[in-house]
Amino acid sequence: MAPVASEKLVKGVLDGQVSAIARLITRAESGEESSEAALGEIYKRTGNAHIVGITGVPGSGKSTLVAELCKTIRADGRKIGVIAVDPTSPFSGGAILGDRIRMGELGGDEGVFIRSMATRGALGGLSRATLPAIDILDAAGFDLIIIETVGVGQDEVDVVRAAHTTVVVSAPGLGDDIQAIKAGILEIADIHVVSKCDRPDANRTITELKTMLALGISLGDHADRPIPVLATSAASGEGTDELVEAIDDHLKWLKSGDEWQKRCYRTAEMRLLKAAEDILRDKFESNRDGKVQALAKRLAASEIAPQPAARQLLDEVWKEISL
Amino acid sequence: MAPVASEKLVKGVLDGQVSAIARLITRAESGEESSEAALGEIYKRTGNAHIVGITGVPGSGKSTLVAELCKTIRADGRKIGVIAVDPTSPFSGGAILGDRIRMGELGGDEGVFIRSMATRGALGGLSRATLPAIDILDAAGFDLIIIETVGVGQDEVDVVRAAHTTVVVSAPGLGDDIQAIKAGILEIADIHVVSKCDRPDANRTITELKTMLALGISLGDHADRPIPVLATSAASGEGTDELVEAIDDHLKWLKSGDEWQKRCYRTAEMRLLKAAEDILRDKFESNRDGKVQALAKRLAASEIAPQPAARQLLDEVWKEISL
Repeated sequence: MAPVASEKLVKGVLDGQVSAIARLITRAESGEESSEAALGEIYKRTGNAHIVGITGVPGSGKSTLVAELCKTIRADGRKIGVIAVDPTSPFSGGAILGDRIRMGELGGDEGVFIRSMATRGALGGLSRATLPAIDILDAAGFDLIIIETVGVGQDEVDVVRAAHTTVVVSAPGLGDDIQAIKAGILEIADIHVVSKCDRPDANRTITELKTMLALGISLGDHADRPIPVLATSAASGEGTDELVEAIDDHLKWLKSGDEWQKRCYRTAEMRLLKAAEDILRDKFESNRDGKVQALAKRLAASEIAPQPAARQLLDEVWKEISL
Repeated sequence: MAPVASEKLVKGVLDGQVSAIARLITRAESGEESSEAALGEIYKRTGNAHIVGITGVPGSGKSTLVAELCKTIRADGRKIGVIAVDPTSPFSGGAILGDRIRMGELGGDEGVFIRSMATRGALGGLSRATLPAIDILDAAGFDLIIIETVGVGQDEVDVVRAAHTTVVVSAPGLGDDIQAIKAGILEIADIHVVSKCDRPDANRTITELKTMLALGISLGDHADRPIPVLATSAASGEGTDELVEAIDDHLKWLKSGDEWQKRCYRTAEMRLLKAAEDILRDKFESNRDGKVQALAKRLAASEIAPQPAARQLLDEVWKEISL
């Protein structure tokens, strides 16, 4: 099969064709240079979707919650896209497929698009394709795009910064150890969800979150907006409608003042820095056998310190780019 | 109190003075530009310590293990330094002090230096002071330096890449959810430790690890060296001597071939890239109200795509640096 031309793919995406969407995401993932122009075209058509980050530690039940959300939002007639960012081995690059499998029951509906992505280790960090994949779904006319991440690490925080609305999922009965990982993400919530609320210890988790909010521990950007704490149960389906309502309300709140623009600006700033870092890493990679090697050898021998070595590298590499 | 001059601090560090070590680490943490020259001097005196990364999910008992290791290694007469990198809120920046507290019983011994460091969120990532702190302890004559990290996220993987020997701690009885987080770090182990081996389910964990190794799932760099799986118990003190022996053996193995040099080169390469990224982020930060703002605004309005915007930014910023 001959490769599909970029223009045709872009057109397919803008027409909302699932096959074109899937292909362009794959192209973005493979990092083909040829995808850059297409993604640039796509980017210019973005800005219409409501991007919702859903995050929580492993075991918090977020994948189940996302599946419930998809069903409820589809029932409204809205199109919903899901990008699930999985923790993965930094070396093997293999994604854990659990989320994808659990959401399988939604397959076959063209108004739902679900994609699992691996985070990349080593010199990569967050898969470069995550943010472009959101762009692609946005440009393809999806009304709501969910980014599902495990709430640990810098990459996840960055993904959350690309969302307009952030939902943090907590579950009753997780150990103290896992709660400690969670501490860092509680404060980024626009909406709190306590999943598995059919469990007897769910009330304690709800009370803890409400107390934390009442103490003002996590006011953050939200000083003039109370942060809802919702209870959901995948077993009974309880709470999903309320969550959809809370997500829609948050969007209204964002657009009622200057908060929407503020968040779009914050995302743009983050993407600018990420794109610059990507360019830097590419230059590093392509000079690995040349300038990088020469300097890394001197660094390994403690002949030069990292800061001056890096400055020298940037200077040499940049001259080359500017030419 | 007048600030201590950099030269005096460097001299103090090289003489192994604890107060000078602590102060220079603090200076590195605060990111004062004045610390760069001092850290450069320090860097040139590094290369003698054995750097050991100890990593494992929360609840694996690594802090207790590190405390046991400190006691055993001190009993040999060796100087030991510990840098504990804690997960922390990306927004508040506050470190979880548990590790520091638990290791408190070692206080008062000048041959043991323990420092907790926060990871930085937002635009920071791993605290920039972590690697310099290791340099400082190395130059100060510590024989063994332990970097203790929670094994999740890119930052932790980067820290591990700065170690000569990596110990991965597993504990029996952690849930599947937390095991999934762990999957990514198992393959980076030079030595496996199963903690809490007094627990009845410890044997299962040991068998699982050995099976994994036998299946060749995590051979990685180590194809010609069997990876030991050790059992330790903080309750009985069992296994700590064996772990010290395994760590020392690994160092001998590294130095018996070209592996030592390979790892030093790998670390140098990583530090070169990290330093270049730091410079880029600093430039980004210092241009935030100017060039960055102008481009981020156009990006937020979808008038330009991230890649060309980043290229333009780098070009403009770089011209400025090169002048």
